[in-house]
Amino acid sequence: MEMSHRSPEYTAINQQATERLKRIIGADDDWEVLFLQGGASTQFMMVPFNFLNKDRTANYIETGTWSTKAIKEALNFGQVHLSFSGKERGFTSIPKNSELTFSPKAAYTHFTSNNTVAGTQFSTEPDSNGSLLVCDASSDFLSRPVDLSRYGIIYAGAQKNLGPAGVTVVLIRKSFLEKQISGTIPTILNYNTHIEKLFNTPPVFSVYMVSLVLEWVEKQGGLEYFEAFNTRKSALLYDEIDRDEFYRGTVTPESRSKMNVTFRLQNEELEEKFLKEAAENNLVNLKGHRSVGGVRASIYNACPEESVQALVDFMKEFRNKNG
Amino acid sequence: MEMSHRSPEYTAINQQATERLKRIIGADDDWEVLFLQGGASTQFMMVPFNFLNKDRTANYIETGTWSTKAIKEALNFGQVHLSFSGKERGFTSIPKNSELTFSPKAAYTHFTSNNTVAGTQFSTEPDSNGSLLVCDASSDFLSRPVDLSRYGIIYAGAQKNLGPAGVTVVLIRKSFLEKQISGTIPTILNYNTHIEKLFNTPPVFSVYMVSLVLEWVEKQGGLEYFEAFNTRKSALLYDEIDRDEFYRGTVTPESRSKMNVTFRLQNEELEEKFLKEAAENNLVNLKGHRSVGGVRASIYNACPEESVQALVDFMKEFRNKNG
Repeated sequence: MEMSHRSPEYTAINQQATERLKRIIGADDDWEVLFLQGGASTQFMMVPFNFLNKDRTANYIETGTWSTKAIKEALNFGQVHLSFSGKERGFTSIPKNSELTFSPKAAYTHFTSNNTVAGTQFSTEPDSNGSLLVCDASSDFLSRPVDLSRYGIIYAGAQKNLGPAGVTVVLIRKSFLEKQISGTIPTILNYNTHIEKLFNTPPVFSVYMVSLVLEWVEKQGGLEYFEAFNTRKSALLYDEIDRDEFYRGTVTPESRSKMNVTFRLQNEELEEKFLKEAAENNLVNLKGHRSVGGVRASIYNACPEESVQALVDFMKEFRNKNG
Repeated sequence: MEMSHRSPEYTAINQQATERLKRIIGADDDWEVLFLQGGASTQFMMVPFNFLNKDRTANYIETGTWSTKAIKEALNFGQVHLSFSGKERGFTSIPKNSELTFSPKAAYTHFTSNNTVAGTQFSTEPDSNGSLLVCDASSDFLSRPVDLSRYGIIYAGAQKNLGPAGVTVVLIRKSFLEKQISGTIPTILNYNTHIEKLFNTPPVFSVYMVSLVLEWVEKQGGLEYFEAFNTRKSALLYDEIDRDEFYRGTVTPESRSKMNVTFRLQNEELEEKFLKEAAENNLVNLKGHRSVGGVRASIYNACPEESVQALVDFMKEFRNKNG
C-alpha cells in the first residue's frame, strides 16, 4: 500500500494511469494529466489563483451548491461575471445557451457539469463565447464523451467515477497556461510546478487504484459504452417517475442528471415510509439532500443496471401498495 | 475502500483516529487534529497564508532541503528571520540554542525536526525566544515524545510513521489561531474551516489506515516505547559506523538522526559495491540522497530491529572482506 513515489514501480503506475486516461478521453499532447490532492474544493481556489487577478474577469455559470462555492473562491482573486444563476429557481434547471451572458474578454468560463444536490446535468458543453471552458466534472467525469476542444481545464475529485477519495484528476491544456497570471503563486498551487515534474509525494495507492479503474473503463468499452449504459440506467428510473403522478421529478426534464436521479413523493410521511421500506429491501443511501428533500438515487459508473432495476421494481411495488 | 464521509461509519473512524492521536501525544482540549491533504509541501504555504503578512515576521531555522522549501513559501507572504542556516556547512549539523538568533516579535518559529536528506535530527525542541514552534515533523512524527507546550502547530505527511501517502496530519493549538491574520484566506487554506467542521471529502481510506497505525502505536507502548526502540535501532548502526575508519558518519555525532542513518565508505567505487552486494542480500533502498552520496538507512517506526541487525551483520561482513 505504500511505496516510494520515486521508485520505477510507481513511475510506471503513474505513466500507465496517465496514458489510459488520455486514451479514454482522447487527449492529445497539448494535454497534461495531473494527479493532485485536495479535491474540487482545492481547484475552486487553484484555478483563479493561476488565471485571475483584479484586472481580469471569468464567466461563471451557477447551477448549484458547488458552482456557488467555486464563485466564492474566484471572487478572492479577480472579477466574476455571473453568466447565469439558477439560485432563484432553486437550481431546478440547466440554462439554455440563449440564457447565458458573457464578459467580452473572460479568462475562461467555469461550469459544473453535473449537480449532485439538485440532480441536474448539462446535456452538452455550454456556449462560452469563444473562451475556454473550465469544468468541475467531479460527479460525472468519464460518464460520457466530452468535446475536449472546448476546454482549458477539467478537474474531478476521484471519489465518484474514478477511485478512492484523496486524489483529484486535473486535465489541463498546456497552451491554456499561456494565460497564467504573472504574479506570485505558491509553488504547490502553480499548475506548472506539477507539469514540470512530480513535485511532491502523490497519494500513490489512490493513483494505483485509479489506474485499475481506468483499465476497467477501457475494457467495458470506454466513454461511448458508459454514455449508453448511464442513459439506459437513468431512463429506467425516469420512465418510472413519469408513469403517473405518484412520483415527481424535482427538475425540468431537459436538465435531468444521468448520475443523480432525484424525485419526491406526495408528502414527507410517504417519503419517510419509502426510504424505510427501501432500506429493508437493501436499497440504501437514497435520502435526498436536505435542501431538496425526497429521494436521490446516485447511479455512478460503478452502479450496475441490476441495482437500478431493483429500485424500479421496489418503486412499482410501493406505488401499488400506497398509490 | 470507499464510503461516504458523512456516514456514521466514517464519523466514527475520524473520531477514533483523533482520540487515539490526542491520547498518544498527550494533547488537551486546546488542540485540534486535522486530517488534510497535500503533504508538508502544502503546509509550507498554508502556515504563512494564515499567520504572516507584509508586516509580520517569523523565525525559520534552516537545517536542510525541506526547511529551505518552507522558507521560500513563507517569503511570498511575509518576512522571514533566518534564525540559523546550516547551508554553508552542507547541513551536517543541527544548531545549538546558542547559535540561534530571533526576531523580537516573531509570529512563530519554524523548524524541521528531522532531515531525511542530510540525516540530522533535533535531539529536543529548539529555543524559540518565547514564540510558539511550528514544526514540520513529517519524518519523525510519533517516533518519540514531544513537549507539546512549546508548539503552535505540528504537521506531518503520513507516509513515514503514520500511514499511506495522501493524508497530512495537522495538530493545531486553537489559542494559536488568535494570531491568524485578518486578511482573506481561501476557504480551504484557512485552518478554521477545518476546525469548524468536516469541510470537504477527506481521504477516507487513508484516515482509516492511520487509525489502525495509531492503534498499533498504542499497543506497542506509545511514544516512550518508540523512543527507546528507535534509540536502540539507530545505536546498532552508529556503533558499527564508529567502530573504525571503514565507515564514516556524514553528520556531527550530536546531530545524528534516529530515523535516517547516513554514512559513507572510503570511495564511491566501494559504496557502489556495498549497495550492490547489500541488494543481493535483500537489503534495499539504501542509496543516499544524491546531494550527500553514500548510504542511507531509513529506519522508521515500522522497521523492525531484526532488519537493522541484518544490515549491521552485512556491514561487518563487508568490512571483513574489503577492509
